[in-house]
Amino acid sequence: MRRKRIYEGKAKVLFEGPEPGTLVQYFKDDATAFNNQKKGTITGKGVLNNRISEYLMMRLESIGVPTHFVRRLNMREQLVREVEIIPLEVVVRNVAAGSLSKRLGIEEGTALPRSIVEYYLKNDALGDPLVTEEHITCFNWAGPQDLDEMMQMALRVNDFLTGLFLGVGIKLVDFKLEFGRLWEEDQMRIVLADEISPDSCRLWDIKTNEKLDKDRFRRDLGKVEEAYQEIARRLGVLPEAGPLDMQGPKVMQ
Amino acid sequence: MRRKRIYEGKAKVLFEGPEPGTLVQYFKDDATAFNNQKKGTITGKGVLNNRISEYLMMRLESIGVPTHFVRRLNMREQLVREVEIIPLEVVVRNVAAGSLSKRLGIEEGTALPRSIVEYYLKNDALGDPLVTEEHITCFNWAGPQDLDEMMQMALRVNDFLTGLFLGVGIKLVDFKLEFGRLWEEDQMRIVLADEISPDSCRLWDIKTNEKLDKDRFRRDLGKVEEAYQEIARRLGVLPEAGPLDMQGPKVMQ
Ligand SMILES: Nc1ncnc2c1ncn2[C@@H]1O[C@H](COP(=O)(O)OP(=O)(O)OP(=O)(O)O)[C@@H](O)[C@H]1O
Ligand SMILES: Nc1ncnc2c1ncn2[C@@H]1O[C@H](COP(=O)(O)OP(=O)(O)OP(=O)(O)O)[C@@H](O)[C@H]1O
Ligand SMILES: [Mg+2]
Ligand SMILES: [Mg+2]
Repeated sequence: MRRKRIYEGKAKVLFEGPEPGTLVQYFKDDATAFNNQKKGTITGKGVLNNRISEYLMMRLESIGVPTHFVRRLNMREQLVREVEIIPLEVVVRNVAAGSLSKRLGIEEGTALPRSIVEYYLKNDALGDPLVTEEHITCFNWAGPQDLDEMMQMALRVNDFLTGLFLGVGIKLVDFKLEFGRLWEEDQMRIVLADEISPDSCRLWDIKTNEKLDKDRFRRDLGKVEEAYQEIARRLGVLPEAGPLDMQGPKVMQ
Repeated sequence: MRRKRIYEGKAKVLFEGPEPGTLVQYFKDDATAFNNQKKGTITGKGVLNNRISEYLMMRLESIGVPTHFVRRLNMREQLVREVEIIPLEVVVRNVAAGSLSKRLGIEEGTALPRSIVEYYLKNDALGDPLVTEEHITCFNWAGPQDLDEMMQMALRVNDFLTGLFLGVGIKLVDFKLEFGRLWEEDQMRIVLADEISPDSCRLWDIKTNEKLDKDRFRRDLGKVEEAYQEIARRLGVLPEAGPLDMQGPKVMQ
């Protein structure tokens, strides 16, 4: 079966799904950082992120957070509902790190007085700039009600994932979400889309503060594959397969 | 009379005022841009900004916007009430220009769908980064109520100044405000502080779009002094004094 390729991103490929309104998300091993300036491969990442995102999206569904996730198809692919992506990256932060530390001069690792939600415009050419509600509503990237809904969902996701990761000895430092619009009988709903994985979260070991996420790749810290495996292992979703199976089916041409 | 120098900034000097709770704001001819990387002098700027800011603050008071302004003392000095400056630059934009154009890829001169209010953290070492309400309230740079008040005031200032400048053939593209806290018998009030002048506004001739503000200095467009004079002239506050008087009294040591 040959499916139409809809979009090839930096970490995933989207194919036409088996039914209208569905897509197949194929997880690659490719990794990029600093707005595409750094490129590389993390062997097995696609297989692991497919599993991790499946697990987290299913758990979120079970507490009533609507997501695009339908079911995992194989080692590297999952079926999702096609949505109209809202062009914002919604970032939730519990601990200062990355661009927040740099922009506001707050030492990485400092616990924030409270969790904060940030919006970045999804625009690679502009380097995904930070935007405020004023920019977002002025240019109609989302409405005030959409923002409220996304903020509420993002905070619920944060509460749940903070707890879930704490339970397996991991501090959820920050993470990025994407949301999309779904139409059902003229009714628009906003649902969680894209992925939740060590590509989109900062995850630190609770005892050692060891980074177990994409920062190992961004900052050349080594043991990148191992970090992704460790997250999958702690969440109980590490495939038992050997290294060959980690490749999964090749992406279709 | 020798007054204590409280603070020397890039464009102004603050001296102890004649009574407790007051300050003397001395306007210099010094100009800086790009976070102090570009430095220069605009002859007579201090004299003109002192007049322009006096005029605009008085007019704003007369429509009920509280300000720090008390009275002009001489060519380069004005008496103001001492406030605790809120560490934010509040920017109102009507037309895309400057950092907004650059950050969001919107051509300079494009009218915005609606006026927007932005907050920048007053921190030269960090390059005055854009911040959102989330950052501001999380780190307690201002509370949600303070932000509401500042936003409401900023929008009133925008309405009034847009009209005033339109009346003299000028488009108010954007401007920066600073606010401060005043305590009166245990009651805290937020008032407009600092200055409103061609240093802190983008002002374009309505017919020719000629820039009549600090961008002439920032971008080496020439006729910088003339632009400041033109604004003062159109507002009816150009001092009749000759070039020598434009110097005003020398700043005290
Ligand atoms: N359910 C969905 N329906 C439609 N598009 C989706 C859905 N879920 C995710 N996407 C989009 O699919 C793409 C996933 O590919 P990938 O994450 O590799 O993109 P990317 O290179 O990171 O680029 P982008 O900056 O757009 O995320 C993203 O553009 C994402 O917004
Ligand atoms: N009424 C007031 N009471 C106390 N401080 C004030 C008042 N009005 C303005 N200020 C402060 O006085 C200083 C004015 O000097 P100037 O504008 O030259 O500073 P600057 O070099 O621009 O530095 P800054 O980044 O702090 O504005 C500013 O720091 C401003 O915030
Ligand atoms: Mg992506
Ligand atoms: Mg200043």
